[in-house]
Amino acid sequence: MNKVRLGIIGLGQQGGAYANFIKEGQIRNMEIGAICDIDPDKKKRVEDAFPNVPFYSDYIEMIESGNIDAIVTCVPHYLHPEMGIEALKRNVHALLEKPAGVYTKQVKEINEFASTKPNLTYAIMFNQRTNKLYKKVKEMIENNEIGKIRRTNWIITTWWRPQGYYDAGSWRATWDGEGGGVLVNQAPHQIDLLQWICGMPKKVYTKAQYGYQRTIPVEDDVTTILDYGNGATGVFVTCTHDIMGTDRLEIHGDKGKIIVDDSKRVTIKRLHTPEAEMSSKMDMSDVMKLFQGAGPESIYKEEVLEFESVWGGQHVAVLENFAANIIDGTPLIAPGSDGINGVELANAMHLSSWLNEEVTLPIDEDKYLEELNKRRAEEK
Amino acid sequence: MNKVRLGIIGLGQQGGAYANFIKEGQIRNMEIGAICDIDPDKKKRVEDAFPNVPFYSDYIEMIESGNIDAIVTCVPHYLHPEMGIEALKRNVHALLEKPAGVYTKQVKEINEFASTKPNLTYAIMFNQRTNKLYKKVKEMIENNEIGKIRRTNWIITTWWRPQGYYDAGSWRATWDGEGGGVLVNQAPHQIDLLQWICGMPKKVYTKAQYGYQRTIPVEDDVTTILDYGNGATGVFVTCTHDIMGTDRLEIHGDKGKIIVDDSKRVTIKRLHTPEAEMSSKMDMSDVMKLFQGAGPESIYKEEVLEFESVWGGQHVAVLENFAANIIDGTPLIAPGSDGINGVELANAMHLSSWLNEEVTLPIDEDKYLEELNKRRAEEK
Repeated sequence: MNKVRLGIIGLGQQGGAYANFIKEGQIRNMEIGAICDIDPDKKKRVEDAFPNVPFYSDYIEMIESGNIDAIVTCVPHYLHPEMGIEALKRNVHALLEKPAGVYTKQVKEINEFASTKPNLTYAIMFNQRTNKLYKKVKEMIENNEIGKIRRTNWIITTWWRPQGYYDAGSWRATWDGEGGGVLVNQAPHQIDLLQWICGMPKKVYTKAQYGYQRTIPVEDDVTTILDYGNGATGVFVTCTHDIMGTDRLEIHGDKGKIIVDDSKRVTIKRLHTPEAEMSSKMDMSDVMKLFQGAGPESIYKEEVLEFESVWGGQHVAVLENFAANIIDGTPLIAPGSDGINGVELANAMHLSSWLNEEVTLPIDEDKYLEELNKRRAEEK
Repeated sequence: MNKVRLGIIGLGQQGGAYANFIKEGQIRNMEIGAICDIDPDKKKRVEDAFPNVPFYSDYIEMIESGNIDAIVTCVPHYLHPEMGIEALKRNVHALLEKPAGVYTKQVKEINEFASTKPNLTYAIMFNQRTNKLYKKVKEMIENNEIGKIRRTNWIITTWWRPQGYYDAGSWRATWDGEGGGVLVNQAPHQIDLLQWICGMPKKVYTKAQYGYQRTIPVEDDVTTILDYGNGATGVFVTCTHDIMGTDRLEIHGDKGKIIVDDSKRVTIKRLHTPEAEMSSKMDMSDVMKLFQGAGPESIYKEEVLEFESVWGGQHVAVLENFAANIIDGTPLIAPGSDGINGVELANAMHLSSWLNEEVTLPIDEDKYLEELNKRRAEEK
C-alpha cells in the first residue's frame, strides 16, 4: 500500500478541511477514498469539489464498500467511539477526532475492542502533540531537567467563541449534542497536553460556570485544582468568553521552572543547586543577601526558547503519521488508547463541579453517566 | 501634639526596624515613647541603641506610664487583638501588626471595642497598601476601567523561606505560636490587597499542603479557588518553597484586563467594545478575520506602566499616616477594622482545606476555632 484511502465521516468544518488537505496533496501517503454525511445536500458539494469521490449517507455502507482503508470521525463527540468500533470490526483503521468520546465508559469500550485488533491502526487527532514547543517541554520534564514536579498552572482562556458560534447549530454546546462545553470542545487539546507532559492527577476539584457569559446550558468557564497525589498540585483555568485570552503554563519542579507564554515562548530556569539543598543550608541572612544583592543569576540559569506558531500543519502531520503507521508501522504520535485520559479528566471536572466536591480518579463512571443523562433529559 | 510618642511592643526584627526608622528621623511626626519586651536581655539593647527611651517588660505598665500616646504590636499574631484592646481601653491609640489576629472571633472583639472609641486611632500595618502600583490598580477597578470583574488570578510564590528560618524560633510556623504558616505570616499582604482591590469572595475552596517541603506542622503551599457569588471566580496560589517564585496577578473584566507582573509592571488592555457586545454581534467568520488578520490592536488598546520596587518606604509611610491621623485626622491608609477581611479569608482557606469542602463566608467561627485548637493541642 502506497496511499491510505481515507473515508471521511462528516463533511463539516473539520472533515472539509481534511478533504482539502488531501486534495491539495499535502498528505503524501493518503487519498480520499470516500466521503459520508447524513445531510443529503453534501452529495452535491462532494460532486463539485471532489469529483469521482464516492459519497455515502450511511457510514457502515461506506466502511463495507471496499473503497476505504481507514476512517476519520468528524462527527459529534458521542459518535466517535461507536463509529471507531464499527470500522475496526470490519478491519478498517480508525482515526478518532478528539475527544475520544463524551464519557469514559464508551471510550473504554473502544479501547478494549481495539486491543483485540492489534494489527489495525487506532489513533486520535491530538494535533497539538505535534507542536514542537510542547514536545520540547515534555522532553525536558522526561529528562528530569527541572526535577520532580511540585506545581502545574495553566491558564488557557484563548478559546473565545461568540454567541453566534453557539447559535450556528442546535446541537452545539448542549448536553445531548456534545456532552459539554469548553471542556469537551475547546480545551481537550490542553487537557491532553497537560496530562501527556505532567501525568494524570489523582484528585480533581472544579468550579465550573454553566451558561455564565453565553446563552448555553453547558460550561463556558472552568477553574480546577489538580492533586497529583504526591504533594504536587495544579491549577487549570479555561473559558470561552475572554477575547483578550491568556495562555500561560507554568511547571514548577524541585530543580527548576518552565514557563510557557502564548504557546510561543518557553522560559526555563535551572537551579544550580536543588531547592531542598538550598533550603537546608541557608539561614535568613543568606536569604537577604540573595534577594538584595546577588540577583537571581546566582541561583539559576535562565534560557528562553522562541517557537513559531504552527497551527496550520498540525492536522496534516497527524493524518500523515496515521497513514504511515498503517503502511509501515511508524510509531503513532497519539495512539487511540491515549484518548481516555483527557476524557477522564474532563469527566472528573464536570462531576466535581456537579457534586461540588473533590473527586478521586478514576471517577465513578456510573455516577457520571447518571448525572450527564439527567442533564440531557432536562434539556429536551 | 506635634509628635506621637510610640510605644513599641516587641523589639524583634519588625519592632527593631520601626525603632530605627524613628531614631533616624524618617518619621517626622513620631518619636519613640517607650519600648517593651518580655525578654530581659532587650533592656540592655535599648539602653545601648536608644538611650533615654524607657524600657518595660510589662506592656500594660508601659501603656499606663504616661510616656506613650500609641502602641504598635510587634508580637506573635495571637496577641495583636488583646493588646490593641488594652491600649484603647486606656485611651492609647493602637496600630496592629498584620494579621489583625489569628481568628475572626478575636478580631471582631477588638473591632467592636474600637467602635466604642471613635476618638481613638485604630489602624493596621498593611504597608502594601501604600504601594503606588496597587493603588493604581485599585483606582482603575474603582473607575470601572476594565468593567465588572469576571476572574482574578494571583500566583504569588515569591515568599521563599529556608528551613533555617523556621528553625530560628520554636514558636515559628506552629499552630500555637502563630496560628498557621504562609497564610498568616507571608501572604496576608496579598490576601489584603486582593480583597481591597477586588472585594471579598462569597465562597472559598482550598487545597493546602501542611509541611510539604519544610519540616513544619503548618501550611507551606496553598491553592485556593474564590467564588465571588456573582459568577466571577478567582485563583490564589502561594507557597514558601519556590526560590524562583512567581508574582503574577491577572484581573479579567468585561471591558478589559489588568496583568501585574512581579509587582512592578502593569499591563492594561482596554476593549474598544465591551465583550458582551462583541459576542452578540460577531459570527465565526468575523472571529477568524479577527484572529488571523486584524490583530489584537483592532479590539483593545494596550498600556504598560512600570513602577519602581518600593519595599523600603512602605512601613514608614504607614507609621507616618497613623501618626497624622492621631494628630490631625488625616484619613487612614488602613483602618484597623479592615484587618478582619484578610483574617476571615485566611481562616476560610484553612477551614476549607481541613474539611476538604468549599466553605461559605462568613465561616462558622466556632468550627474554625475548634479545628484550630485541635491542632494547637496536638502539637504540644
